[in-house]
Amino acid sequence: MTLRVYLSGEIHTDWRERIVAGATGLDVVFDAPVTDHAASDDCGVAILGPEDKKVWHDHKGARLNAIRTRKGIADADIVVVRFGEQYRQWNAAFDAGFAAALGKSLIVLHGPEHAHALKEVDAAALAVAEHPEQVVQILRYVLTGILPG
Amino acid sequence: MTLRVYLSGEIHTDWRERIVAGATGLDVVFDAPVTDHAASDDCGVAILGPEDKKVWHDHKGARLNAIRTRKGIADADIVVVRFGEQYRQWNAAFDAGFAAALGKSLIVLHGPEHAHALKEVDAAALAVAEHPEQVVQILRYVLTGILPG
Amino acid sequence: MTLRVYLSGEIHTDWRERIVAGATGLDVVFDAPVTDHAASDDCGVAILGPEDKKVWHDHKGARLNAIRTRKGIADADIVVVRFGEQYRQWNAAFDAGFAAALGKSLIVLHGPEHAHALKEVDAAALAVAEHPEQVVQILRYVLTGILPG
Amino acid sequence: MTLRVYLSGEIHTDWRERIVAGATGLDVVFDAPVTDHAASDDCGVAILGPEDKKVWHDHKGARLNAIRTRKGIADADIVVVRFGEQYRQWNAAFDAGFAAALGKSLIVLHGPEHAHALKEVDAAALAVAEHPEQVVQILRYVLTGILPG
Amino acid sequence: MTLRVYLSGEIHTDWRERIVAGATGLDVVFDAPVTDHAASDDCGVAILGPEDKKVWHDHKGARLNAIRTRKGIADADIVVVRFGEQYRQWNAAFDAGFAAALGKSLIVLHGPEHAHALKEVDAAALAVAEHPEQVVQILRYVLTGILPG
Amino acid sequence: MTLRVYLSGEIHTDWRERIVAGATGLDVVFDAPVTDHAASDDCGVAILGPEDKKVWHDHKGARLNAIRTRKGIADADIVVVRFGEQYRQWNAAFDAGFAAALGKSLIVLHGPEHAHALKEVDAAALAVAEHPEQVVQILRYVLTGILPG
Amino acid sequence: MTLRVYLSGEIHTDWRERIVAGATGLDVVFDAPVTDHAASDDCGVAILGPEDKKVWHDHKGARLNAIRTRKGIADADIVVVRFGEQYRQWNAAFDAGFAAALGKSLIVLHGPEHAHALKEVDAAALAVAEHPEQVVQILRYVLTGILPG
Amino acid sequence: MTLRVYLSGEIHTDWRERIVAGATGLDVVFDAPVTDHAASDDCGVAILGPEDKKVWHDHKGARLNAIRTRKGIADADIVVVRFGEQYRQWNAAFDAGFAAALGKSLIVLHGPEHAHALKEVDAAALAVAEHPEQVVQILRYVLTGILPG
Repeated sequence: MTLRVYLSGEIHTDWRERIVAGATGLDVVFDAPVTDHAASDDCGVAILGPEDKKVWHDHKGARLNAIRTRKGIADADIVVVRFGEQYRQWNAAFDAGFAAALGKSLIVLHGPEHAHALKEVDAAALAVAEHPEQVVQILRYVLTGILPG
Repeated sequence: MTLRVYLSGEIHTDWRERIVAGATGLDVVFDAPVTDHAASDDCGVAILGPEDKKVWHDHKGARLNAIRTRKGIADADIVVVRFGEQYRQWNAAFDAGFAAALGKSLIVLHGPEHAHALKEVDAAALAVAEHPEQVVQILRYVLTGILPG
Repeated sequence: MTLRVYLSGEIHTDWRERIVAGATGLDVVFDAPVTDHAASDDCGVAILGPEDKKVWHDHKGARLNAIRTRKGIADADIVVVRFGEQYRQWNAAFDAGFAAALGKSLIVLHGPEHAHALKEVDAAALAVAEHPEQVVQILRYVLTGILPG
Repeated sequence: MTLRVYLSGEIHTDWRERIVAGATGLDVVFDAPVTDHAASDDCGVAILGPEDKKVWHDHKGARLNAIRTRKGIADADIVVVRFGEQYRQWNAAFDAGFAAALGKSLIVLHGPEHAHALKEVDAAALAVAEHPEQVVQILRYVLTGILPG
Repeated sequence: MTLRVYLSGEIHTDWRERIVAGATGLDVVFDAPVTDHAASDDCGVAILGPEDKKVWHDHKGARLNAIRTRKGIADADIVVVRFGEQYRQWNAAFDAGFAAALGKSLIVLHGPEHAHALKEVDAAALAVAEHPEQVVQILRYVLTGILPG
Repeated sequence: MTLRVYLSGEIHTDWRERIVAGATGLDVVFDAPVTDHAASDDCGVAILGPEDKKVWHDHKGARLNAIRTRKGIADADIVVVRFGEQYRQWNAAFDAGFAAALGKSLIVLHGPEHAHALKEVDAAALAVAEHPEQVVQILRYVLTGILPG
Repeated sequence: MTLRVYLSGEIHTDWRERIVAGATGLDVVFDAPVTDHAASDDCGVAILGPEDKKVWHDHKGARLNAIRTRKGIADADIVVVRFGEQYRQWNAAFDAGFAAALGKSLIVLHGPEHAHALKEVDAAALAVAEHPEQVVQILRYVLTGILPG
Repeated sequence: MTLRVYLSGEIHTDWRERIVAGATGLDVVFDAPVTDHAASDDCGVAILGPEDKKVWHDHKGARLNAIRTRKGIADADIVVVRFGEQYRQWNAAFDAGFAAALGKSLIVLHGPEHAHALKEVDAAALAVAEHPEQVVQILRYVLTGILPG
C-alpha cells in the first residue's frame, strides 16, 4: 500500500519538512502547494500579464495555483491541513472542505487554542493532531501497524 | 426554474434576512444552518449527553450540525458564503470548499478588506459581492434576466 | 427542508413506532424495510417459487428485500440503524456500511453494552444515541433548531 | 490483469495467511486492516493522547483505522469478508456494505451455521465460500480460467 | 415510497398491460419504450429525413428512441426486462446491462427455456420471474410487505 | 414522463419561441439562458460594479450567466443546441460539450452548410435537425410515440 | 497513450486471436472473459460445491464469471463486442449495455445480417465493423493516426 | 507530481510542438487528437467502408476520432484548448465544455481579438493565455513553483 498525502495550509513554519523527514522509509508520496509565498502571490501576473487592480492580480494567481492544489487533493488518499498561529488561513479551511466532499481521509493539525473555532473542520476529520510528529506516527501506523514507543 | 439557495457563514448580522426579504416574489427556496449560536454550540450534549472535555462537547455538536449543513449544501443550486467582521469563520470557508467540490454555484459575500485573504475562495466563486442586496440582484437576474436600475 | 429518514435494523421492538410518533408535526418522511419477519424471510419463495435448499430460499428472499432496502437507503438523507439485544444483526451493520459509502448522514442507536463492538460503525456516524427519543430530538433540532427541555 | 484484493473481517485465525500463501504466483496484490488486535484498539490514544472515557478511546482508534480500511476497500477489485466463530463482527458486515455500495466484487467467507444470519450480505456477494482455499481457487480461475482438480 | 418502474423488452405480447393493470392501486409510476413497432423503426427518417441505406435509416431511428429509453432507465428505481419467444431481443439485454451498470434494481422476466442463455443477465438481477403476475406481486410486496395468497 | 429541455445557443432568431409554441400540450418544461443580449453582456458589472478592462467586464458577466446555464443543463433531460448564421457561437459548442460529458441527450439544430464544421458535435448528438419544427416532432414522438403526418 | 481493450462476446471463433495478433507492436493491453466454454459454465459448482438444480448451477457460475467481466469492462478504455453466427449471445449485448452506461468507447463487430437486430447496440457504438482486421485498423489509427493502405 | 496534458484545438500551426519542446525536462505527458487533417477527415470511411453522403462520411470519422479524444480528455489533469485564426473550431469549444464538465483544469489559448466571443469558455478556465510559451511557463510553475525571468 502506497499512501499519497497532500500537505495543505500554513506555509511559514517547517511542519512539512518535519513530516517528510519523519516519514523517511515509509511508502508515502507527498504533494503540497507552492510554498514560496511571493511566487504564489504573483504567479498569475508574472505569466499572464500585469493587472492594475489588486483583485484581478490575486484572481489570476489564485486560479493558477488551483491547478496544482486541485490535482494534489484529487490524487491524495490523505489530506493533512495545518492551521498555524498567523493569518486567517481561509484557503486551508477551503481545502479541508474540498477534501471532505471528495471523501478523502482528512487529518487536521493545530494547537488546542484553535479547537473551538475549528470544531466543524475537526468533526470531518479522521484525526486531529497537534504536532507534525503525530502525523508521521499516523502514517507509520496506517502503513505498518506499528505504534510509537 | 426554482433555485435552491443555501446561506452559509456569519450568524451575527441580519444578512440572511435581508436576502430572504429582498427575494420576495422570486422562485427561490432558502436553507441555512441553525443560526442560534448557543443552540448550535450545545446541541450535541443537550441531546446525546454531557461531556467533561470541551473538545468532545464541541465534537458532538459539530457532527449533529453537519446533518443539516451537508443536506443544505447537497440540495442547493447556489451556495452563498458570507464572511463577516468577527471570528475566524473557518467553517464558512470549509463550507465553500465543500460546495466547490460538489460543483455548486458559489457566491461569496465579504468586504474588500478580506479580498486578499479570501482570494482562493473567491477564485472558486461565480460571483463575489459586498452587499446582501447584490445577492438578491443576482438571484433576480438569474431567474428573470432583469437587471437592477 | 424535508428530511427523508430510513429506519434500518432491529425489527422486534417498537423503536420505529416511537420515532415516527415522536416526529409528528415535523417535516419528515420515513421509510423502512418490511418488518414482518415471516414475510421478509419467505417472500422470495412465496412469489418466485419454492426451493429445496434453505440457502436458495434465503437467497431469493434477501434479493427481493434488497429492492426495497436499497431504494430506501438511496433516497434517504438520514439513515438510522438500530442494534437491539437479540440476533447478530449483520444486515443492520451492512446497511450502515452501505449508507456510509453513499455519504448518507448516519445515526446509530444502541445500548452502551454494544459500544465497543460497534466502534467502527459509530465512528462513521454523525450521532450515536441510546434511545429513540433522542433520534426524535435530533430530527427536531436539525429541522427547527429547537433543543429539548 | 492484476487483481487487488482486500481481506476484511476476522483477525483471530490464519485465513489471510492461507489465502496469501495459496495465491503465490498469481497476479494479486493483497491489502488488509491492521490485524494486531491490541494495536488496533489503542492506536488512537497511543498517537493522539489518552482519554478518560472508553467511548472516546474507541472513537479515536476507530477513526484512525478507517484511514487504512477505507483506502484498502476503495482500491480493491475484490473485497473478501470473513465471518468467524467469535465476536459480533459488525465491522466486517459494515465493510461488506461499504464495498457493495462502491460496486466492488464481494466474496463472503463463513461456515454454514451463519448462512441464515448472513443472507443479506451473501445476497450482495458474487461468491459465498466456506474455506480460504476456495477463495484461492476463485482468484486463480478469475485470473487464468483454470479450475481446481 | 413511490416506485418508478421501466418496462423494457418484448413488444409483441400484452405483458406490460397485465403488469400495469395488476398494479392498480399501488404507488407505482410506469415508463416504457415506444411499443408501436412501425413507428419505432421509422421515427428517425419520418422526422429527420429519408435515407437510402437501411443502416442509416435504422441508425437515425435507434438514436431517437434512445432519448426515451435512456431517460426511462435513468429515472427508474426498478427496470423489468422481458425476453419473449421471438426475435433476438438484443436491445432488451442491452437495456439490462445498462440498468445494471447504473445500479438499478433489475427484474428479468422469461420462460424457463431461456434460463441457461440468460444466466449472466439473471445473475445481475434481484428477481427472475416467469409471469407478469409475479412482477405485480413483487411490486406489491416491496411497497406494502403483503405477500400473495 | 415529463421532459426537461434546455434550449442553448443562438439568441437572434425566434427558434425558441417556435419550439415552445409547437410543444403546447406536451409534458415539457423548457429552460434557456438569458436571451436579452445587452443584459447578458452587462450583468456582471451592472450588479457587481464596473471594470476598466473589457476582459474583466466580460469575465464577471460570463461567470454570472454560468449560474443559470449550468443549472439549466444539469437539470435537463434533453439539451437542444442551435447554431445560427451569425457569430462564432463558441458558447453553444461549449454547452454541447458540457451536456455530452454529463450524459444528456443532445439534439443539434443547424443548417446543412455547417454540417462539416459541426461533425464532432453532431457525432455526440442523438438527433441532428434543421428546423425547430423537427425538434417539436421529436419531443412529441419521445413523449407519445406519435409521428408527424 | 496506452489503450486497454476488453474483447467481449462470441467465444467459438478466432476473432480475439486475430485482433491480438494484428495489434502486435501497438500499445494495447487486452482483457477478455474466460473463453473455455466448459470451465465458464461449471466454475461455480467446481469451486463452491454442486447444485441439484441447473438454475443454481448456472447462477453460481455466472456470478463468479462476473468478477472477471466487470473488472475487465471497468478497466477498459474500449470495449469490443462481437456477435457471431450462433447462439442468442444475450451476455454480449448485456456487456455492451453495461459498457455504454459506464461511458466506455464501444466497438461492435458483426456481419451485415444482424444489422437491423443490433441497431440499438450499434447506435451506442463509436464504430461498427464486420471484420477483426478493421478493429486492428481502428486501434492503430487511434494510437498512431496511421490509416490502412 | 506528473501532469497529463491534453492539447485540443487548432491543427494548422506549430503551437503543440512549441509547448512540447518548451516542456522538455518537466514531468509532463502530452496527448492530442490526430492532427493529420486528411486522415482525421477520412478515417471512418477508410476503415469502415465508403459512404455516398458526406454527412455519414463525416459521422463515421467523427465517431472514430472520438475514441481518442474522449480518452485523452478523460485521462488529462489539464486540457489546453487553442483557438486559432481560421475556421469555426466548434470542436475545440466542444472539447472545452466536455473538459469543464469533467472538472478538468482548463487553459485556453487565443489572441485578444477572440476574447469577447470566447468569454464563456474563458470564464470556465483557470488560465487564459495568448502564447504557447505561457502554457509552458504555467506547467513549469505548477510542477516546480518557479516563475519565468
